[in-house]
Amino acid sequence: MNEDIKSKIRTIPNWPKKGVMFRDITTLLKDEKGFRDTCQRLYEHYKDRQIDIVAGIESRGFIFGTALAMLLKKGFVPIRKKGKLPAETVSQEYELEYGIDRIEIHKDAIKQGDRVLLVDDLLATGGTMKAACQLIEKCGGKVVGCAFVVELPDLHGREKLKGYDVFNLVEFEGD
Amino acid sequence: MNEDIKSKIRTIPNWPKKGVMFRDITTLLKDEKGFRDTCQRLYEHYKDRQIDIVAGIESRGFIFGTALAMLLKKGFVPIRKKGKLPAETVSQEYELEYGIDRIEIHKDAIKQGDRVLLVDDLLATGGTMKAACQLIEKCGGKVVGCAFVVELPDLHGREKLKGYDVFNLVEFEGD
Repeated sequence: MNEDIKSKIRTIPNWPKKGVMFRDITTLLKDEKGFRDTCQRLYEHYKDRQIDIVAGIESRGFIFGTALAMLLKKGFVPIRKKGKLPAETVSQEYELEYGIDRIEIHKDAIKQGDRVLLVDDLLATGGTMKAACQLIEKCGGKVVGCAFVVELPDLHGREKLKGYDVFNLVEFEGD
Repeated sequence: MNEDIKSKIRTIPNWPKKGVMFRDITTLLKDEKGFRDTCQRLYEHYKDRQIDIVAGIESRGFIFGTALAMLLKKGFVPIRKKGKLPAETVSQEYELEYGIDRIEIHKDAIKQGDRVLLVDDLLATGGTMKAACQLIEKCGGKVVGCAFVVELPDLHGREKLKGYDVFNLVEFEGD
């Protein structure tokens, strides 16, 4: 359906490590029509969902999250890696392949009852997005949707995000 | 002139270290009018400058750079910290207070002769933006402008960027 968008995403084999097929969205971004169409199609999906604010996950989630916030005429909230946000934060740990990591949000970024759209570029195992959902809820917000440009269904991220509304434009199988 | 925008930027004293007044743009971003007005005023300044592509510096430069690319109807190129971009890169070192760092761009991101608008959130000493200008030129592009939301004139970033067209919306003195 979004084959035009999919065809503009470059695949880089064995990056960042052997055996991984990395889906590189920079070739989509630099294409003015590809970039606009991507943002416009995400917008079309969410425009009637009564979003109060858009949150994006560092750092490629900033790219599509910001563009989507602009189109929806809403504000934007950055969710960042630990230690990057200067004011009081709420944080959430999540598991990596080896070890744990943590993401943070400003405590005053979300108002009680805010309907929040979460955005990232790619859904793999879903660990970061799940932590982002937990952050929004800790702040008193409601996660209206988890938007991705790309999903890798073989990594079962949707299972980890069960109960949330997950949407993508493009899927790559066999990863 | 842009007092409405300036008033939405929060100042956090002694962050990330004692003696620094950190200008926090997250309070501007989450304000839907503030965010839109900021992007719109940057757009007004550049709309007739025949920009071919917009490049933003990781990671807050992604936020305003993407929004500006959307408004200008152009593609977006991320300039990233070392080791983050998956394909062949061009890199440039720059000096930090202690030591050196490096930023990178995909070698095929800019076409020969492209008129490039560079975007970051804040101009302090100008080291990163100067390195970004060098990257664009190494790729054969022409830097049409260096756009910032905030400038800290006391840190003399403009001197380091001499010869480039530098623009800001808001200045904070006494830093």
